[in-house]
Amino acid sequence: MISVDEAVARIATATKPLEAVSVAIDESRGLVLAESVSSDRDVPAFDKSMVDGYAVTDSDLAAEASSGGTVELYVLEEVTAGATPTQTLTPGATTRIMTGAPLPPGTGAVVMIERSTAAGELVVLDVTGVVPGDNVMLRGSLQRAGAEALAAGARLGSAQIGLLAELGHAVVRTVPRPRVAVLATGNELVPAGEVPGDGQIRNSNGPMLTAAVDECGGAAIDLGIARDERDDLRQRIEHGLEADVLLLSGGVSAGVLDLVPEVLAELGVREVFHKVQLKPGKPLWFGVHGFAGHDFGTRSGGTLVFGLPGNPVSSFVCFLLFVRPAIARLAGRADTRHTRARLVDAFPRRRDRPTYHPAVLDESSTTSTVRLARWRGSADLAAFAEANCLAVLPVGDEVIAADTVIDVVRS
Amino acid sequence: MISVDEAVARIATATKPLEAVSVAIDESRGLVLAESVSSDRDVPAFDKSMVDGYAVTDSDLAAEASSGGTVELYVLEEVTAGATPTQTLTPGATTRIMTGAPLPPGTGAVVMIERSTAAGELVVLDVTGVVPGDNVMLRGSLQRAGAEALAAGARLGSAQIGLLAELGHAVVRTVPRPRVAVLATGNELVPAGEVPGDGQIRNSNGPMLTAAVDECGGAAIDLGIARDERDDLRQRIEHGLEADVLLLSGGVSAGVLDLVPEVLAELGVREVFHKVQLKPGKPLWFGVHGFAGHDFGTRSGGTLVFGLPGNPVSSFVCFLLFVRPAIARLAGRADTRHTRARLVDAFPRRRDRPTYHPAVLDESSTTSTVRLARWRGSADLAAFAEANCLAVLPVGDEVIAADTVIDVVRS
Repeated sequence: MISVDEAVARIATATKPLEAVSVAIDESRGLVLAESVSSDRDVPAFDKSMVDGYAVTDSDLAAEASSGGTVELYVLEEVTAGATPTQTLTPGATTRIMTGAPLPPGTGAVVMIERSTAAGELVVLDVTGVVPGDNVMLRGSLQRAGAEALAAGARLGSAQIGLLAELGHAVVRTVPRPRVAVLATGNELVPAGEVPGDGQIRNSNGPMLTAAVDECGGAAIDLGIARDERDDLRQRIEHGLEADVLLLSGGVSAGVLDLVPEVLAELGVREVFHKVQLKPGKPLWFGVHGFAGHDFGTRSGGTLVFGLPGNPVSSFVCFLLFVRPAIARLAGRADTRHTRARLVDAFPRRRDRPTYHPAVLDESSTTSTVRLARWRGSADLAAFAEANCLAVLPVGDEVIAADTVIDVVRS
Repeated sequence: MISVDEAVARIATATKPLEAVSVAIDESRGLVLAESVSSDRDVPAFDKSMVDGYAVTDSDLAAEASSGGTVELYVLEEVTAGATPTQTLTPGATTRIMTGAPLPPGTGAVVMIERSTAAGELVVLDVTGVVPGDNVMLRGSLQRAGAEALAAGARLGSAQIGLLAELGHAVVRTVPRPRVAVLATGNELVPAGEVPGDGQIRNSNGPMLTAAVDECGGAAIDLGIARDERDDLRQRIEHGLEADVLLLSGGVSAGVLDLVPEVLAELGVREVFHKVQLKPGKPLWFGVHGFAGHDFGTRSGGTLVFGLPGNPVSSFVCFLLFVRPAIARLAGRADTRHTRARLVDAFPRRRDRPTYHPAVLDESSTTSTVRLARWRGSADLAAFAEANCLAVLPVGDEVIAADTVIDVVRS
């Protein structure tokens, strides 16, 4: 049986970023930029005012600012944002100017409107302490035409999208959202809205996994429930193999009706590994489909296939540890959900496999702490619903002392 | 001018969670549960096997387990998941059982299939070390019928949605996603896809704010660009007042074409405050519409109206500090984006207003650190695109020493 790290590494080897596509920036939130983006023009494209006020020349400023006095100037015109000045500023004159409006040639600084007193065609300005350059943003001071503003690999959040808009990139090349098909298998499953009969349970893995896929930036495709019946299973799996990732839950243990491995083999899905040294989640199965030969590097349109355990808790843990990093990698980014934190209470460990225990990570202060949640056995999904992370408890029999720093995976 | 804390408090006073609605769990991701949820049945609803194997009686186990031996048993039947046993287990007999299948009455433990050797109608089981209860999950051991599984106020992530499905709640009452209308104003604005003329700039606030709304769990409604022209502005603002929140960007400073405050007053939007003691973002305007009298507590269908500064950086900072907590509160949850971290490099402060500086928060280890980003003045959106938080620098003239713990707001 391979280790968690080995399993993560084998999955990563089979996983390359998807081919870039063009999208409108309105649809780009959360995606990774697949090209370097520069500005088509200087930003700002003209010297502009940062405030509502009056543009003055350096010489009018020099004459009076040192004495802490006022200047009386003739008002040439008014320029609002979106308009353009028609006259050059000369000593003795001023232009009334609004925030964001272009400054007339000859401007040294802008005096805020709150420091002005109108007097007919004249205005009196208090220039005490005003120095050349005040409230002026020079052309190109934020961004030069042609200079890189965002590098390929940047993840697009609201600030990045605002910047793209500012620089005139309404459409950009991005790595698309990986399409992840989710198929629950098992005769015992009924949909969440139905009352289970004898021996049946509700399909919790389907809704849980589709939500988990969306949470980490994938696009979930719900394939419903497959019966333990060869034709039904085969048809749904074939459909799922059109996606970038296929998640199967259930059907990968050693039971008589576990047809999944057989059907996958028939459809040309090649097993990479089966079973991983962890708890919960040992029965994890991973394979690949549609790759050219043995060189994972030349992936084109292939599918990563995960056989997740039927137990919802095991399925959840395997998703966080193995599927989420794969989705991130397909989407062109790293999975950055690992951290370390100080264990609040001592824990009497007795484990023959590394255990991923539901826990509560508190990152509200400088030092992160982690508190283990109450966990009533490996099928207790409620414990994970109260938690926000997995605490990683290594193999061993000794007590883990309070204040020990341990690895944590955010959920 | 009021402080940031005072502004946050006044907005909070005007903000109550939206009225709950019923949604399918497939559509509930990220929403807050508005009801207490319990199980309609015991979970599991029957004693079940945790593994593929053979159910055995306590007496067969007691006879041989202590001696480290094997037992030879007659196989009564096979029960797969979703099926039900037809025969009671008696000493000398076993039932072949699959993971998740109901156990026959009389079962003491399940012996894993890996420990079995078939011998015609008989099976030989190695029961060394197997004790009563092994691999058995008892009815109701995870959840009792009627007991609360999730409390009102729980935020629905993938684990919670899995739990709801398990317990048969395919539809739940939740606080809906707040509808947030976004309207950029100004004659100087052109859409991101167009080339600006003289004195014009591209509308970056619209795309940035709609992305920011979606990022924090709101549903953005893009109202486009309003000209500085009374009728156009009035019509778009009226449309925006049908939403839970209306974000206006630009038009709230003291310029001659800043019609926004007038139009808002005409439409019955009541000003709560204008201008806040912070940098960048001072010109923030906040008002309310459609509230019954002066009692914010009886809100029904009212709208929170934010006049954000036109400068994209100021707009972004005001969104994070003031709008995001309001959206969270409308959605029934707290905004939990504040933390504290150790400043990496000393910073020579010279501020007359608390400053929210773009910075990079590193939470990958036990102790969080924060490093200020390069920031070329208050219009430099690129600095925020490289950052992942705002570092809070209080008023003062002294140097903030390296290793000082400061407040941080995640972006």
